[in-house]
Amino acid sequence: MGKEDMKLIWGSGSNPCWRAMIAIEEKGFGDIEKKLISFSEKGHKGADVMAKNPRGQVPTFSDGDIIVNESLAICLYLENAYPDNGTKLVPKEKMAQVYQMAIEAQENLQMKIAVKCIYYQWRLPEEQRDEKTLKENFQAAREELQIWDKRLEKSGGDFVCGDKFTLVDVVLFPYVATVKRFGNDLSGFPNLKIYYEKLCKRPSIDKSWPPHWREAELADEKKILKAI
Amino acid sequence: MGKEDMKLIWGSGSNPCWRAMIAIEEKGFGDIEKKLISFSEKGHKGADVMAKNPRGQVPTFSDGDIIVNESLAICLYLENAYPDNGTKLVPKEKMAQVYQMAIEAQENLQMKIAVKCIYYQWRLPEEQRDEKTLKENFQAAREELQIWDKRLEKSGGDFVCGDKFTLVDVVLFPYVATVKRFGNDLSGFPNLKIYYEKLCKRPSIDKSWPPHWREAELADEKKILKAI
Repeated sequence: MGKEDMKLIWGSGSNPCWRAMIAIEEKGFGDIEKKLISFSEKGHKGADVMAKNPRGQVPTFSDGDIIVNESLAICLYLENAYPDNGTKLVPKEKMAQVYQMAIEAQENLQMKIAVKCIYYQWRLPEEQRDEKTLKENFQAAREELQIWDKRLEKSGGDFVCGDKFTLVDVVLFPYVATVKRFGNDLSGFPNLKIYYEKLCKRPSIDKSWPPHWREAELADEKKILKAI
Repeated sequence: MGKEDMKLIWGSGSNPCWRAMIAIEEKGFGDIEKKLISFSEKGHKGADVMAKNPRGQVPTFSDGDIIVNESLAICLYLENAYPDNGTKLVPKEKMAQVYQMAIEAQENLQMKIAVKCIYYQWRLPEEQRDEKTLKENFQAAREELQIWDKRLEKSGGDFVCGDKFTLVDVVLFPYVATVKRFGNDLSGFPNLKIYYEKLCKRPSIDKSWPPHWREAELADEKKILKAI
């Protein structure tokens, strides 16, 4: 157990993978062994992933013999197994709020942004989609982002829970960056916009930025979150 | 803060509420103030819930000034704020596995049992449902339950993570009971069946059993999970 025995298997552009990557950087383990798989080549169903996670999902993390799947579990494990390393992701004085908001962000943003806006347009056959549902889904995504925008306004600091970077930011930031990547300029969410611009420069986020996002912007017709 | 200042607002038959109730019992706080709302009378959108959780969702829990929503956050808060009370829901020696499986159970069972099997049949207008999708959803639910059935077989103890009741059981049990309530006799999942029968008698579970489930069995035509 420890830095030398850690390994992460991950895929570029996946929000759960990015979440794990940010937590690993924040806890001071950025230079551990990492294997980047390709989703299009079904790397997440490869033998090394399946051996650690029979569900065939990434991220999968190991620390010696200890295997941890599920991105939020990886964050909680790192925070609790290595309480004195790097950033305190769940500061004691904000514990209740951090647990709640981290889970709240994961549950709501994954469903409302990823599933109901992105996958709805990318993965569902065209004949199964309809304009009315998409409009309602966009509306729900907009309202969700407004919740986080207001929380940032109220936090009194640069982050969602005050002046310290916490587990809530680990979960929230990749979704904000996804909304931006998919064509939304965030002007409807002024506090999220400032948050995005500042956090882009944070070392943990800069270093874990999805590599294929750096290579090229999305083509205009793929910028499907413009109108959220 | 402490037992005298705690309050839970909850609804009967909701898996997330039951989860919070079990954790509260296990941590030795079973006799705190609890308010039962009625979903059919929209109690979850009532003023007292909205003041604590603007999303209008239960469970919502408070410990003095500290408000915690999201059932898993309530469990994590209780475990960490009161480490020496009652059951250790996240035992240190099984920490990684417990975090992972608890989150894994929540993510998968909520989607595969509640959303894709129950809500699909109960909430979606009949013209939007189709037999093929329902069959696939049942298949996915069956495979998911088999994963937990096998884990119980392998655990070497009475619970999912060995011989101690943990946070994983807090999340898993209410779903198993839901499958049973909705007409499945669990004979396809022999280890889950034994688990169900044993855990029914556990005080935390017996005391938190959804009151309207005690009053009457579901009518036969509502037993929609028979064929999982």
